[in-house]
Amino acid sequence: MRAEDLIPSRLPEVTRQAVLAPLIDHHCHGVLRDELDRARFELAMTESHAPSPPGTTHFDTPLGVAIRRWCAPLLDLEPHAPPGVYLARRSELGAEEVNRRLLAAAGVGAFLVDTGLDEPGLLTPAEMGRLGGAAADEIVRLERVEREVAADGPSAVDYMDRLGEELAKCAARAAGFKSIVAYRHGLGFDPSRPSRGSVIAAANRRLAEPRERLTDPVLLRHLIWTAVDAARERGLPLQFHTGFGDPDLDLHASDPSLLTGFVRLMQPLGLPVVLLHCYPYHRQAAYMAAVYPHVYVDVGLALTHAAAGSPAILAELLELVPFHKQLYSSDCYGVAETCFLGALYFRRGLARALAARVDEGEWSSIDAARAAHMTGSGNARRVYRL
Amino acid sequence: MRAEDLIPSRLPEVTRQAVLAPLIDHHCHGVLRDELDRARFELAMTESHAPSPPGTTHFDTPLGVAIRRWCAPLLDLEPHAPPGVYLARRSELGAEEVNRRLLAAAGVGAFLVDTGLDEPGLLTPAEMGRLGGAAADEIVRLERVEREVAADGPSAVDYMDRLGEELAKCAARAAGFKSIVAYRHGLGFDPSRPSRGSVIAAANRRLAEPRERLTDPVLLRHLIWTAVDAARERGLPLQFHTGFGDPDLDLHASDPSLLTGFVRLMQPLGLPVVLLHCYPYHRQAAYMAAVYPHVYVDVGLALTHAAAGSPAILAELLELVPFHKQLYSSDCYGVAETCFLGALYFRRGLARALAARVDEGEWSSIDAARAAHMTGSGNARRVYRL
Amino acid sequence: MRAEDLIPSRLPEVTRQAVLAPLIDHHCHGVLRDELDRARFELAMTESHAPSPPGTTHFDTPLGVAIRRWCAPLLDLEPHAPPGVYLARRSELGAEEVNRRLLAAAGVGAFLVDTGLDEPGLLTPAEMGRLGGAAADEIVRLERVEREVAADGPSAVDYMDRLGEELAKCAARAAGFKSIVAYRHGLGFDPSRPSRGSVIAAANRRLAEPRERLTDPVLLRHLIWTAVDAARERGLPLQFHTGFGDPDLDLHASDPSLLTGFVRLMQPLGLPVVLLHCYPYHRQAAYMAAVYPHVYVDVGLALTHAAAGSPAILAELLELVPFHKQLYSSDCYGVAETCFLGALYFRRGLARALAARVDEGEWSSIDAARAAHMTGSGNARRVYRL
Repeated sequence: MRAEDLIPSRLPEVTRQAVLAPLIDHHCHGVLRDELDRARFELAMTESHAPSPPGTTHFDTPLGVAIRRWCAPLLDLEPHAPPGVYLARRSELGAEEVNRRLLAAAGVGAFLVDTGLDEPGLLTPAEMGRLGGAAADEIVRLERVEREVAADGPSAVDYMDRLGEELAKCAARAAGFKSIVAYRHGLGFDPSRPSRGSVIAAANRRLAEPRERLTDPVLLRHLIWTAVDAARERGLPLQFHTGFGDPDLDLHASDPSLLTGFVRLMQPLGLPVVLLHCYPYHRQAAYMAAVYPHVYVDVGLALTHAAAGSPAILAELLELVPFHKQLYSSDCYGVAETCFLGALYFRRGLARALAARVDEGEWSSIDAARAAHMTGSGNARRVYRL
Repeated sequence: MRAEDLIPSRLPEVTRQAVLAPLIDHHCHGVLRDELDRARFELAMTESHAPSPPGTTHFDTPLGVAIRRWCAPLLDLEPHAPPGVYLARRSELGAEEVNRRLLAAAGVGAFLVDTGLDEPGLLTPAEMGRLGGAAADEIVRLERVEREVAADGPSAVDYMDRLGEELAKCAARAAGFKSIVAYRHGLGFDPSRPSRGSVIAAANRRLAEPRERLTDPVLLRHLIWTAVDAARERGLPLQFHTGFGDPDLDLHASDPSLLTGFVRLMQPLGLPVVLLHCYPYHRQAAYMAAVYPHVYVDVGLALTHAAAGSPAILAELLELVPFHKQLYSSDCYGVAETCFLGALYFRRGLARALAARVDEGEWSSIDAARAAHMTGSGNARRVYRL
Repeated sequence: MRAEDLIPSRLPEVTRQAVLAPLIDHHCHGVLRDELDRARFELAMTESHAPSPPGTTHFDTPLGVAIRRWCAPLLDLEPHAPPGVYLARRSELGAEEVNRRLLAAAGVGAFLVDTGLDEPGLLTPAEMGRLGGAAADEIVRLERVEREVAADGPSAVDYMDRLGEELAKCAARAAGFKSIVAYRHGLGFDPSRPSRGSVIAAANRRLAEPRERLTDPVLLRHLIWTAVDAARERGLPLQFHTGFGDPDLDLHASDPSLLTGFVRLMQPLGLPVVLLHCYPYHRQAAYMAAVYPHVYVDVGLALTHAAAGSPAILAELLELVPFHKQLYSSDCYGVAETCFLGALYFRRGLARALAARVDEGEWSSIDAARAAHMTGSGNARRVYRL
């Protein structure tokens, strides 16, 4: 299966080349190093983290059909191979070979890997890069740094100092920071920097139970603002999880427009604010990218999971988003199929939207190529200074 | 007009057969037994419950055009017959014959009928089944049971006991329960079971004015949790009205994602939670169905009312919803046209989505047939144990 | 470029004529009288009011491409002319000639112009009409009237009296009122009329700083209700900004469904409530137009800014909106390109939706023509009594 077979053929050649050029996957996670039996594979292919109801299978999802359709040929099977056949062949080839084939087929030039997940057995950024034939860099998850600082049992004042020091160290090596405050509290937090007194009081409560997840809104805000301080020297972007994710999330609290107050406070600082995923609030996110000069967006894993239905999502993002504000990410995690399919559906959705514009005489083929280049890699190179 | 003329012809035969197979309409209401003059018909064909502005007609709506287009031939008229001609022919045939033709043409194998409406002259579930050539079962509306218990003027303690007894009786005969807490309070209620003391206090206030609609959030929660207790023995599903409805509703308070906390509390109990209609929050609902193993969804009356524009709605639901989680309902009410058109636009929208997937090589025709079967009837048979 | 070249050719002739007929642009602003250098043009073509990031241009947006595609030929250039060429030709022709060409090409029969903006150098309603070959009327922005009253430094009681008098004067000459409470407080305000005592107390605070923007929710409500009183004699519509706008806005607070309580209170008064723009909450707005007899909607500037992607937005509005409830507006402002493109994309989107319905046999060509006529001008003539 050649890359050029993956997108519709009616695109003008210059546009086609731009769509097929290597992508920057500016937000992803490691995939699992080891082989997976069917039960583990089914859990890893869904955001649900739970088995499907008795008598059903997570393969009966848009993503499940897409794996059988598009990944099967990469494992030398016919398209639409049954799940059992697919997983048997996957085992036969072995996890490393499968990961290599799928990551390489994604056609990615650089991975920016969020290393904040606890799950053991995930490939490191360097391993992702090596198997995928790509450069690799790290995105540091704020809540992970905080947990490590809290776990050491410092005093409240030390906690504050240590957090600043650790984030400064991270800022020296990372490509960006990421916040999952959407999961821990929701995006409707008070956007202002909390007072030192309120942070110390909250830290004293926090440090009594340092093994718990951080959910205190004062400390979550403090963590974000401490990261802002650390990010300023190198101008690092600050990524926010927004929109859908796993069952821990209250979806309505992850609407990116709830970040508006924070975005306004960030505007004079010049640091990029990156809204990840955003679905089903991607129109809200596109609007924010259109009116705030430092806001960037992607639709991340929404494309992977919607699969055959994903072009409509990308089309909606394209309604308002400036071409210099959209980024590509797979948000892949666990199974390498999600890395390949993220790239595939991004390219297919983009190709469809561009082909329609060119066919209708709305855009020139050069306009379409330019937008594809910026979105696929140009913007990420600029924003992350790659 | 043959059923096979109602959907596009380019679908593979195996998929086409699956789309045309009898549906389970898992949530509907009775249609009116008697003939309707134009004023009553216009009121019954809209969720507005009010006449359209002077000089306008409710026939100037997507549903109005659809009635003239698709129902007229079932009454032996040409497609696009004018409203006056349509209603004259409707009177000529008589309500029973019209109801029989329209309900039968829906191609439904079983109706699950919400019997909680007060409007006189609605067909019973048995009558719906007889005219539609289908099985029929009952969905018990919780707020109706509560009103009957409250109307008897019990003490607060008796109120609690009676509510439990009545719901247990209903659970023995019904196919499921339905809550309209979206109308009475909104879905952002405190999801926990209220304390006995708080229920008794609230019941004392309630029982001073038992003829009022129940809007007290403590008693609404108590009602839901009492229904959960009653439903457990037979594993009955609990339906929730979500999304759009009539003018009594505050739309933003009916976003199904506001139910997330309740859904989490329900997860260990194993009872299906069914999100009805959901529009325009159907993507939120599809996400919930994707990540919570006990959550099911439909887009109910959204398809009937959007009519020619409805395929886009179904397409959005299909972005994330697992095939084993989607159900069919017409939510028909009042005029039998809404029963027929609900089924018609469900089949047309599904056929369009499936044809696109097959045409683009994304799904096999067997994949498409399998998804159509599950969605049209298989899931409902499993969830309602039909 | 002839008007008939701007929409797809496959529309039946009767429908095509209805789509091409003159529009009523029931909500727009003046465009700038003077010539614009590139920096000013770029600021005026975006809702951002800020330059795009270094190395980027606001021409890299859907609207930017649309200007080059559709406006360039009106300035005697080839489609897709580069930005520099376009702006050079624009200067060569001069602002008045450019404004005349673009406004006239919009094919508008009447402009209703919101005169509440402070920016100097905007064309008056009469000038808009003269250049556009159209009638022109005024929409009075409530917050502007209030500011002028407050600036005179009256006592609190005089403030109330003066506000009533000024709004009554405006009502005698204007076609309607407009509220931007969405910007100043959000649409989730207490819908009831505030008490006289609370207004006087709030006015005393307000009048201590009369040059500030009015953000007090009591006075904003008082302003709206005073306008309602003034509007009743002539039955003037009350327009509300809802949905997206410029960076001052908290998007989630501009969801038109937050107005539901106010809409219910307005229902017995018979005054039309007009929801402007609405995006990305246009489905919510369409629902409100469907169930409340006095509610009207448009998608205003969403079409202009989404440009090539705009047909999907109009299609979503058309899912639920009755044909007698939808209006057309460009919401043009600053550059005349937004007036022309608003009309262009409204016609193109409507033509596409209607062509699809006719092609699929859903609507007759007469149905489609009727809906186009009502939406493009008929409803506005009725509602604004033009």
